[in-house]
Amino acid sequence: MGGVLRVVSGSLGWCVTIRFPRPTKAGIPLAPSSHERGSFADQRRSHAYYRGFRSTPKKYTKLIHGALQLCSFLILLLGLKAVLDSHDLNVNAKTGKLEPTVNFYSVHSWIGLLAMSLFGIQWVGGFVTFFKPGASMEFRKAVMPAHRLLGTIIFVCSLSAALMGVAELSAWSMKCWLDDKVICTEMLIANLFAVILMGFAGTVLFLVAHPSWIRQPLPSDM
Amino acid sequence: MGGVLRVVSGSLGWCVTIRFPRPTKAGIPLAPSSHERGSFADQRRSHAYYRGFRSTPKKYTKLIHGALQLCSFLILLLGLKAVLDSHDLNVNAKTGKLEPTVNFYSVHSWIGLLAMSLFGIQWVGGFVTFFKPGASMEFRKAVMPAHRLLGTIIFVCSLSAALMGVAELSAWSMKCWLDDKVICTEMLIANLFAVILMGFAGTVLFLVAHPSWIRQPLPSDM
Repeated sequence: MGGVLRVVSGSLGWCVTIRFPRPTKAGIPLAPSSHERGSFADQRRSHAYYRGFRSTPKKYTKLIHGALQLCSFLILLLGLKAVLDSHDLNVNAKTGKLEPTVNFYSVHSWIGLLAMSLFGIQWVGGFVTFFKPGASMEFRKAVMPAHRLLGTIIFVCSLSAALMGVAELSAWSMKCWLDDKVICTEMLIANLFAVILMGFAGTVLFLVAHPSWIRQPLPSDM
Repeated sequence: MGGVLRVVSGSLGWCVTIRFPRPTKAGIPLAPSSHERGSFADQRRSHAYYRGFRSTPKKYTKLIHGALQLCSFLILLLGLKAVLDSHDLNVNAKTGKLEPTVNFYSVHSWIGLLAMSLFGIQWVGGFVTFFKPGASMEFRKAVMPAHRLLGTIIFVCSLSAALMGVAELSAWSMKCWLDDKVICTEMLIANLFAVILMGFAGTVLFLVAHPSWIRQPLPSDM
């Protein structure tokens, strides 16, 4: 279910991206899709990892979990760079001159930055506590519920930032319905993308938070 | 912590509302605040109820939980009516003539409708299962994790819809930074409102999902 929604939302994400390239030198089509990828696809894969691979020893799942989150963070940084470039290298369509747009003014960017900051803190905290040098077993046990919950909150924060990005782009660029008073294809795609992203996030939350699906320790983990 | 954030987000919500009344006959200032109230304040109170009142017998907490959610839903309906009125009774500022705006075209409205639909289904399902006529104890036990999780997902969906509303309004109405290239007060308030709403939702999720804070049955509940 989550997988199907992921494929559909990914495809629609590309449609939104391809249909709405902003006028820029910097190849902005990278931005929304890498944003969406970074904040969702890989985070989700990483969150859900412990649910699917129940009989894989913890030391491997842990490694893959950390690596996937790192990938997710790097893709997110790439998306951020693309957005910053698209602002800094913005060209006025009439005059052809460089006319940089300001950065970090929108509410979408603030929530996005919040998500990224929490993500960074969580990753470093998780690495130090659960990997290298690694805290005592008592401390790990005490911290684990908070680590899980913060992960979920970061996921929700990323979801909100992504959806706010779609809402912002719609309000900025899609004025077609004002003239025709009918919903146009661009808007339909953006709206469907948001609904499916929401459905996808719902399945992830369900999967991760369902008490009876939490990974039970294997004898080899002890 | 959650309470403080609630007060701050509530006040900022009013600021956003009061500073940006849309040109309409219908007193739109009601809309965003009642939206925010309905989708957050009361849902949160209701979610967190089981965490705070641990020694109150279940039959009372259950009653208050259902009543608060119903209030939340009714306030949400009121907000929806205000929005619909503001669209249907929209007046062209130049000609002074009635010029209705189309409804349910924005991505914010789609996610909002999704949240409201799930909310309605959850409330009716909860009422029938846990209140009147009430299902068997086995069925209630089996359904409870799903009821909790769906509640959390609806909360996240409402959060996203609210934040998308702020992002949309910012992109639509706040062009001040385009001229001055500095962040203006309106935008600062909207951005802070969104960040604090996110923080508030984070505390609720933490409170509700922390495994050791789940309400334990009292002897009188058996």
